[in-house]
Amino acid sequence: MDLEKIIRSIPDFPNPGIIFKDITPVLGDPAAFKYTVDWFCDTFKDTGSVKVCAAEARGFMFAAAIGYKLGWGIVPIRKPGKLPSTTLYEEYDLEYGKAILHIHDDAIRPGERVLVVDDLLGTGGTAEAMVKLVQRLGGVVTALGFVIELDFLKGRDLLPGFRVESLVHVASE
Amino acid sequence: MDLEKIIRSIPDFPNPGIIFKDITPVLGDPAAFKYTVDWFCDTFKDTGSVKVCAAEARGFMFAAAIGYKLGWGIVPIRKPGKLPSTTLYEEYDLEYGKAILHIHDDAIRPGERVLVVDDLLGTGGTAEAMVKLVQRLGGVVTALGFVIELDFLKGRDLLPGFRVESLVHVASE
Repeated sequence: MDLEKIIRSIPDFPNPGIIFKDITPVLGDPAAFKYTVDWFCDTFKDTGSVKVCAAEARGFMFAAAIGYKLGWGIVPIRKPGKLPSTTLYEEYDLEYGKAILHIHDDAIRPGERVLVVDDLLGTGGTAEAMVKLVQRLGGVVTALGFVIELDFLKGRDLLPGFRVESLVHVASE
Repeated sequence: MDLEKIIRSIPDFPNPGIIFKDITPVLGDPAAFKYTVDWFCDTFKDTGSVKVCAAEARGFMFAAAIGYKLGWGIVPIRKPGKLPSTTLYEEYDLEYGKAILHIHDDAIRPGERVLVVDDLLGTGGTAEAMVKLVQRLGGVVTALGFVIELDFLKGRDLLPGFRVESLVHVASE
């Protein structure tokens, strides 16, 4: 399946000069969503992971379907004020601004193996923050998986030593 | 499975006097998440729906797994500034404040049958807004499903004539 043709490019969103990769057409197309989720499952099923972790909100949809299919727990990493119990948090730089992400402090037990996923790997700030949060709870990040990787933003440079796999690579802006 | 024991009650979140029902332990427990998703699928599989629609962000996780399992498209309904293409929106009252939700104007075609889901039915404002957005695009709401219903808030009174099913009922505060 040529997923790249289903993903929609929206110029100047959320800010001028940024071409936003819109995955809502993938969500709306059952065959495309199944293809994407099955790619994650096939790629990472042998990592020995017991949990899959994602940042809100688009990442939640991929993590949920992966967790459901593989029988792994799902760990939501969220923006401030959203997780009701005690949390750890990381502040980090986005492609456009700053952000903070929280994780429940009981979401991962020491030694648990965790796959980290998101819809998109851009500058890598969100992914790096997720890795730090998992590690601060004693979790072991087995790999990171993305639907789309914007190769020109070199996000994987922030993830040295980790296995990083993406279904669709965008070489240039 | 006694899901009610797995759901965690957090007092005074997000505001004093509110007992928040935290479903993250359900997400973190593969058997509990499977039980919940399978309940949705078994309950609604014969509604003739072709799409499942949910509001960000907790609802996304249930909708994604349901859509994956049943082969239905997934329609995310989002807060302002999140959907990159053209949208319709509805403003509504929350249990604690006001909110606005958007839907992509091409997310649902006229006549498409749509299941609406969320993690929780409280006052019903979010659910009613979702129904309106689906209907404004010409979609047919087949039913609404929730993991938890706070019966004492009478949210289903805002959804007259619709089939409304919840896995867990909370009778009183």
